[in-house]
Amino acid sequence: MDLNVIYESMRQDLELVENRIKVVSQVENPSLSELLDYSLKNNGKMIRPVLTLLSGKFYNHDMDRLVSMAAAVELMHTATLIHDDAIDKSPVRRGRATVYEVWGEEKAVLLGDYLFAEAGAFTASTGNIRAIKLFAATLKTISSGEISQAFDAFNPDQSRHQYLQRIARKTASLFSMATESGAALSEAPEESIQVLIEYGYNLGIAFQIVDDILDFIGSEEQMGKPIGSDLAQGTLTLPALLIMEYYPEGNPVKRLFDNRDDQDSIRLAIEQIRNSPVIEECYQVASDYIQKACSNLKVLPQNETCQTLMEIADYIVQREK
Amino acid sequence: MDLNVIYESMRQDLELVENRIKVVSQVENPSLSELLDYSLKNNGKMIRPVLTLLSGKFYNHDMDRLVSMAAAVELMHTATLIHDDAIDKSPVRRGRATVYEVWGEEKAVLLGDYLFAEAGAFTASTGNIRAIKLFAATLKTISSGEISQAFDAFNPDQSRHQYLQRIARKTASLFSMATESGAALSEAPEESIQVLIEYGYNLGIAFQIVDDILDFIGSEEQMGKPIGSDLAQGTLTLPALLIMEYYPEGNPVKRLFDNRDDQDSIRLAIEQIRNSPVIEECYQVASDYIQKACSNLKVLPQNETCQTLMEIADYIVQREK
Repeated sequence: MDLNVIYESMRQDLELVENRIKVVSQVENPSLSELLDYSLKNNGKMIRPVLTLLSGKFYNHDMDRLVSMAAAVELMHTATLIHDDAIDKSPVRRGRATVYEVWGEEKAVLLGDYLFAEAGAFTASTGNIRAIKLFAATLKTISSGEISQAFDAFNPDQSRHQYLQRIARKTASLFSMATESGAALSEAPEESIQVLIEYGYNLGIAFQIVDDILDFIGSEEQMGKPIGSDLAQGTLTLPALLIMEYYPEGNPVKRLFDNRDDQDSIRLAIEQIRNSPVIEECYQVASDYIQKACSNLKVLPQNETCQTLMEIADYIVQREK
Repeated sequence: MDLNVIYESMRQDLELVENRIKVVSQVENPSLSELLDYSLKNNGKMIRPVLTLLSGKFYNHDMDRLVSMAAAVELMHTATLIHDDAIDKSPVRRGRATVYEVWGEEKAVLLGDYLFAEAGAFTASTGNIRAIKLFAATLKTISSGEISQAFDAFNPDQSRHQYLQRIARKTASLFSMATESGAALSEAPEESIQVLIEYGYNLGIAFQIVDDILDFIGSEEQMGKPIGSDLAQGTLTLPALLIMEYYPEGNPVKRLFDNRDDQDSIRLAIEQIRNSPVIEECYQVASDYIQKACSNLKVLPQNETCQTLMEIADYIVQREK
């Protein structure tokens, strides 16, 4: 199902979030305003703020606070991407030049800091201590995941367990923060909050696995960035990890990790991964997490909101970009 | 007066803050733990957390929360320094190799993010919404000040007003956050909080002016970093700004800004600034801010704590490093 169709019933709520984010770039300093304007022009999928909105809709909620929290979640995500691009020296994301590419590393780092702070300010404005503590804890978790990834770059000796642990911290933590914060703002009973945390967490794991698959099998045009970019950065994702498991004697991933400048090995690794059952196996792992994500949703009120959560879960594994 | 003498009466409180900060590096991931351990080894002046402790001591306070807030203030400061060093590619700070120099830019950026989050977590743990909102707003202010500085690099057309505005955002905002958060945590009457905000703000301006003076007249050994490093980065600080005002026809600062690689001009600028009345004038400006900082302290209870605030103010302009 197309994401626009899934979002249909919540178009108005989502516009409130988009408008709240737009206000962020209205600052006095014209240079900062330009940077903000560029980085906040939205062409992302908005899945994380949508999860906050949906998770907050089951029980009593104050729409204004929910919108602030959803904006915070999206801004935090944007800030991490800006820092990622700066440290990876990535020129393109979502088909557009990155802040790093246009303004350089210094401004990208500082802009990321600014947006973390803005996300924190939005979270603080909810006045909800649980959401605020969660925000800080999640940023710690994400950064520690990224630090692990940096230390593990070009290390061929990594297990599936390590991979899952890393993407749990790097990606799933923000997904479960999105759902938990929404639920916490709506006075949901603790049992429901826990179900939504589990949903967000497992959805996040599946989302990252599919991201890692698409980094190999997607088209550069659809992905808006070069194919095989994780591998080029020395990041061992599930498809590459499985190739290493299947062909321990010798494979292009291992060869690349032994010689980082070997562009030929990147090309060969992409080819081998695309033409192997590895991709199907990765999709199976992602689907298992999706199933896990949805398994307890029946505890929640069975309404349109719950239906949308299930549609998003289906979308995650079917998406092509 | 020596800082150790000034801190004498609060040695125990300060140790509580240092111990709370030490706990931060006790994390599972050994690589992250090593990074944290290195970056949190304290050889700074601890002025900011001391301001929080002192500002919180005039009225009813919970020591545990005050210590958390003081730790948050110091961690936020540490995080900004780590990011500054990464984007300036500074090899040395406080006489020690920077995180950037030892681990590289990627890890420095991510470690800074982690420490911002840790600072946020400490702030959140106070449960005080005013302190939490202040934390987020201050990080926005600091980042926007740094962004202005980045855009103004090597721009010779800057006024004193612009300089003061920039250091207000970059430095004074954290000083006034330190005092305001302490005061807010101690149920101080609003009038007292405002006096402490004013004190912190003016102290911060004076502190940065003296920092900018010492960057020219200090010794490399005492400063723990190369002399003239601001100028080398293209940052126009008060001493350099006054040289530009005094010698509009031609001066080494202008020549450096016209030709960034002109090492000779840096040397000449340092020499000219050291041997001119510019330094005395800068000290006068700093002293005026110190006087302003202390002017309303009489509104507060006249006790040992208030005495210490005045001693710190004196120290700020007398310090040699």
